[in-house]
Parts: sequence; structure tokens; C-alpha cells
Amino acid sequence: MNKALNFEIKATEGEARSATLTTRRAEIETPVFMPVGTAGTVKGIRFEELESSDLDAQIILGNTYHLWLRPGLETIRECGGLHKFIGWKRAMLTDSGGFQVWSLGALRKITEEGTEFRSHIDGSRCFLSPEVSMEVQAALGAEIAMAFDECAPGEATHDEARQSLELTLRWAKRSKDALVTQTVGLRADESKTDESQTDSLRYRQALFGIAQGAGHLDLRRESLERTVEIGFDGYAIGGLSVGEEKHVMMEVIEEIAPRMPADQPRYLMGVGTPEDLIEAVARGVDMFDCVLPTRNGRNGQAFTSRGKLSIKNARYALDQKPLDESCNCSVCRRHTRAFIRHLYQSGEMLASILLTHHNLAFFLDTMKRVRQAIRSGQFAKFRREFTEQLHCGLE
Amino acid sequence: MNKALNFEIKATEGEARSATLTTRRAEIETPVFMPVGTAGTVKGIRFEELESSDLDAQIILGNTYHLWLRPGLETIRECGGLHKFIGWKRAMLTDSGGFQVWSLGALRKITEEGTEFRSHIDGSRCFLSPEVSMEVQAALGAEIAMAFDECAPGEATHDEARQSLELTLRWAKRSKDALVTQTVGLRADESKTDESQTDSLRYRQALFGIAQGAGHLDLRRESLERTVEIGFDGYAIGGLSVGEEKHVMMEVIEEIAPRMPADQPRYLMGVGTPEDLIEAVARGVDMFDCVLPTRNGRNGQAFTSRGKLSIKNARYALDQKPLDESCNCSVCRRHTRAFIRHLYQSGEMLASILLTHHNLAFFLDTMKRVRQAIRSGQFAKFRREFTEQLHCGLE
Repeated sequence: MNKALNFEIKATEGEARSATLTTRRAEIETPVFMPVGTAGTVKGIRFEELESSDLDAQIILGNTYHLWLRPGLETIRECGGLHKFIGWKRAMLTDSGGFQVWSLGALRKITEEGTEFRSHIDGSRCFLSPEVSMEVQAALGAEIAMAFDECAPGEATHDEARQSLELTLRWAKRSKDALVTQTVGLRADESKTDESQTDSLRYRQALFGIAQGAGHLDLRRESLERTVEIGFDGYAIGGLSVGEEKHVMMEVIEEIAPRMPADQPRYLMGVGTPEDLIEAVARGVDMFDCVLPTRNGRNGQAFTSRGKLSIKNARYALDQKPLDESCNCSVCRRHTRAFIRHLYQSGEMLASILLTHHNLAFFLDTMKRVRQAIRSGQFAKFRREFTEQLHCGLE
Repeated sequence: MNKALNFEIKATEGEARSATLTTRRAEIETPVFMPVGTAGTVKGIRFEELESSDLDAQIILGNTYHLWLRPGLETIRECGGLHKFIGWKRAMLTDSGGFQVWSLGALRKITEEGTEFRSHIDGSRCFLSPEVSMEVQAALGAEIAMAFDECAPGEATHDEARQSLELTLRWAKRSKDALVTQTVGLRADESKTDESQTDSLRYRQALFGIAQGAGHLDLRRESLERTVEIGFDGYAIGGLSVGEEKHVMMEVIEEIAPRMPADQPRYLMGVGTPEDLIEAVARGVDMFDCVLPTRNGRNGQAFTSRGKLSIKNARYALDQKPLDESCNCSVCRRHTRAFIRHLYQSGEMLASILLTHHNLAFFLDTMKRVRQAIRSGQFAKFRREFTEQLHCGLE
């Protein structure tokens, strides 16, 4: 069988590292931030903008849960997989659906076999398991798939977290077994449809395992070790940013990231602010995804090099400055805070579009600068200056 | 005093004509379609897209009523006029606010002096008159301003329409008087702020008069004649597409357009479908604005070379074709009907963004082809083929 991916570390500085991650369809430079494309779209932004030099997103995330419910597996298959369906040729990673189902709370019931839940769209009864998730993810056809896991809440007791991680480990094994079976079918399917695509299939779909364990460091270590024993193409830290305190999150990252296999990608799921990203990179993390730049953008918040800016604030009504004076994105080159505030107050879609663009530009540019810093041995300096500026307040 | 604009007819075919309209800041090739930018934004599309080769919008429309209420005159002034406030360097036309206030129905009271109404935003009492409208439009600073008029409903009786047009004529005179006074102030203001802008002020702000008269052809003729007697830089046909039947609209255009001064621009306000545009061009109209491409796009409707397409329709769930197979816009080059339908069904903003882009591309490209056809003496052929294709049904 072909490899799933190649991970070549180009430079390190302390725990921070920069690598080239070669997947089935694309090469990705790490550390990398993945914009979240829930239902086949990164909300509020066109793919052309994601590809533009402002953003240059190397990889985006798709949500298995959402895409499975709508448009559904048959539509995605009929339309030739997720890349072809949405018109995106760069890399993608799909989550397993586990976290979304877990987030449904009272609407779901977890058993050994999997999770039963009611669709948030039409209330119909659905069932997601490692096997179903892997089947859906194979049809979606992202470069990287995730094992189906269970997430424990941030305040989980030791016993609860232990139970949850044992289930996650059994599901991880079943996810891996299911992937192997389906990879054959996927490849046969793909070779039929598009020759140019087949040519680039030097690598099979990669599968990442997920370490859980809530805020309990002993469980986190055990979860990681036993996930590594099963053997995956990369490893993720799951179950953070789910209600625990910030210092707990950083303790877990500091404890776990350096213990993850050094020659494979390390992915911190669902995190975080620009500062979280820099701090996690400093602890050895390679990959991130987060809805903050897009969701907060729609809610009127801009991330800037000098901290967050709430565009609703009346102080910006006549402000002729761009969102971020240090930013060179197309929004900051053209539009003032006063105008974007007016758009937001008027309920105009363009407010969301512009804030989303700027926020993604800021996150992605920050990660680009992180990569450059590590490769030139300047990461410690970059981290210090970036953090200082972030806390010096908005002009 | 400087001229307001220069209008040089380059080619004619029957009543259809193509001209170069030179305004204070920009040259515009006619016939031209103006996307509607109600509150300082053409809804759902970035200015970069409006400027792109797909759309290449030469001029957009701004709504005096909306901008006056929010962000308000002082903000617009403080921010250096509408162009600078929104970040748009190409040409703009502002309406007078008359139509929007008229549309408020029971919320407004019309007197000789002007119109009293309650703001749709906060219910506060406001008063708009020819003098106020001209003051606001001077501050907005568009290349072309419109006289403050009253619109009669589509079904207005002869007496009602007569009363309304007499008021409109008195308001037209007052609008013209008010413009002259303020032009001085405007120029003085502008020369202070931006030298490069002053340099291009070879022309003052232009003012167009508006002919009313509902569906009564005798009143329409009289309204036009007496508006021309007052003397404006261009003339508009107002009060169409306000509930009258389609054949009434076409009769009015056919009767009035050819009687409008031949050496000045003729603007048909608020109209219409691609077919309406072609038919009005054939009757001698030069300029159009309409919310159809943007509003219908947000409601899931695409305009195509073979008629309208409602993306909600289940028949498109697996449709791998672009919105319009004859269209070369970035949306049609990249995305399928199946994907755009999925976005629409999922309530994703990108559905509105993509449909808006395609619809504007279709309207603007159609007008570009109209100009080319007239200039090469092929307009009759273009009109016949365009109309035939429009009615042959969607693939």
C-alpha cells in the first residue's frame, strides 16, 4: 500500500518546528492554520479569496457531520467527492463528526457501537459510528481523515475521562480497520473518474488518531501512548477549548505535544486565538483549525496585531484608519473602520465578508510569519515581539 | 461654471445608441447598467469584484434616503464624501430619496414644501425636500445627482397623475436652484482635501430631471417637455415598474424615450429584467439601474441566457452544470448548480455571494454586448438572437 503522507522537518527552534507535509494531492508547509469549511464553504468567503496571496490557505477543514446530513453521502458521491463538489483543488481535512455529535448534548445517546442522535436539520434519527464515519470520510475524499472519537467535557472527573478515553481507543482501532477496507474502494472509484487526479495519488488518504483525557495529565499521556500503539499517520490533541480554563489547556499542550511522535504531524483541534497558536507552536504543535476568525468576524470582531477590535463600538464611527494598521490585506488597504462599522450597523452582508477576510488574512499571515521565523531561527524573537504588540492596545 | 458632463454619441442603430458619457471623475460607455448600492454597498459583493473583468461596473448607484438616515450627513462629510467613505473610485449616481420616501406609504405625508416621514430605522421624524435632498447629494458627491421628485402609483388616475407631475415640476425647479448654490461650496470643500481629486474636476456635479405622469401618455409628454424647459444635464423616466402592467411600461418608454433630448443621456429608473433592458435600449434609453440581479440573487434566483433559474428546485440537486453554460464568469467557471443549491438550502452566505456575482456579471456583460452590437451595427441581430435564446428554456 502507498504511504499516507510524508512529513519532512525543515527547521526547529526549541520545541517549535517547521515541516513540509506531503499528502495525496498537495504539499503543506507547517505550522499551518486550517480555516473551517463546515458545510463545504468557509463561511462568508469565496474560494478565490482563500487562494489569493492575501490568505493563501493551504488546507481547509470540512465537517463530516454537516456534510453527511446535508447534502448527504449520495450527492457527494454522485458529484465526485468533496473537492469536485465544492470546486476546491487544494488540500482538505475532514473531522470525524464525533465532536459535532457530542455537542448535540441531550439530543444524542452514546453506546459502545456508536452515537445515536437526532438531526439538527429535520429531527430524523441518525446513527454515527467509527465505520459510518470512515465510510463518509472516504466518500468526501479529503487528504486527511480523522478517527471517530468521543470528547469528554472540560470539567470531566478522572473516572468519566477514563471511561471516555477507553471508548475513544476502541473506536480508534475500529476507525483504522474501517479505513483500510475502504481505501481500496475509494481508489478504484477515483481511478475511473479523473485521470489527472489518479496521477497524483502517490499517497492514500491519511488517518489521524486523537488523544483525549480531559484535563487529567496522566490520562492524557496514557491516551496518547495507546493511540500511538494503534498506529496512525498523524496525531491530534482533542477535547480542548471545550470549557476548561485556559491554563489547563496550556498545561495539557505542554505535557502532551512534546511526547507526540516527532516525525509525524501534531494537530491541536479547535484552537484558538492568535496567541494560543503561537504558544502551541512553541510547544511543538504543527496544525490548527478554529472557527474564531470566521465566526467572530460575522459577529463584528476583528483580530488585529494589537488585540481584538469590536467594530460595533461607537468610537469607530468616524475612524479613518484600517482595521489593523499593520495589515496589508485587501480590506485594510481599501476600507476604513468607519465604513465597516456602518456596514455592520446596517446589517449589510459586506460587513461579515470584509471582517471574515481580514481575520483569515491575519491568522494565515501570522502562521506564515511563524514558519519564516522558525526557518530563519528567529521564532523566539518573533514570539516575544508578537505577544508584546498584541498586549499594547489598539490605536 | 464648468460643464456637468459631456455626452458624445458614437453609434446608432434605429433608436438604439451608444455613447461616451464623460462626468466629473469618470468616463462611462453607454448603454450602461448601474448596480444598486443602497447603503454604500452593492449587497453581497466586494468592490474588487465590481471592478474585476467579470463585472467591470462603470458606475454604481447610491441611495440618498438610506445614507442620509445612516450613517448620516455629518459622518459622510467627515469621511470626505461617499467615494472616500466607501472606498470606490469609479463613478456614482445618487437618487434623490424621493422614491424611497414615497415607498414608505402610510409612514409619510407629502406637502408643497416636501415630505415628512418617520425613519424606518428608529421611527424618528424626518423631513426631506428638494433643498435637503440637494444638500445631502452634494455632500455625497456623486458624479450625477437626481432632482427630488414625487412618484405617482402605477394605477394613478389622470387627475392624480396631473397633480403629482405638477408638484414634481415645482420640485424640479427648486432642485436645480438648490444645486447651483451648493456646487460652489462643494468645490471649495473638495479642493481643500485632495489635490488629485481637484485636478479631475473638469466637470461639476451633474443633475438629471425626472419625467413622471404614470401611465398617461399625454401627461408623460407634457412632463417631459416642461422638465426639459427647466433644463437639466440629463433626463430620466421615473415612476415605472411601480405596479403598472408590463405593456403600459413599454408604451410609456416607446412614447417618451425618442422625445427626450437626443444629445443628452436618457435614464430609465428602476428597470428591469435583461429583456426589459434590451427593449428599452431599442427605444433609445442609455442608462439603467435595478435591484433585480442582487435582490433575486439573494433569494436564490439566477438570471441566465436561457431565462431564470430557481436554485431551490430539487431538479438541480445533482446538476453538474454551471448556472449558465454560456457564461464565463468566475462562478460559472468554478461551481455547479448542485453546489450552489446545497449552499442555498444550508442558508450559507456564499449562496447569496455567488448568485449575486453571477447575476451582476450577466447583466453587465449583456450591456457590454449591447454596446458592441450597436457600435458594429449588429444590434437588431443581437436583440433577435438574445430574445430567442432567452425563451428557449433551460437545459
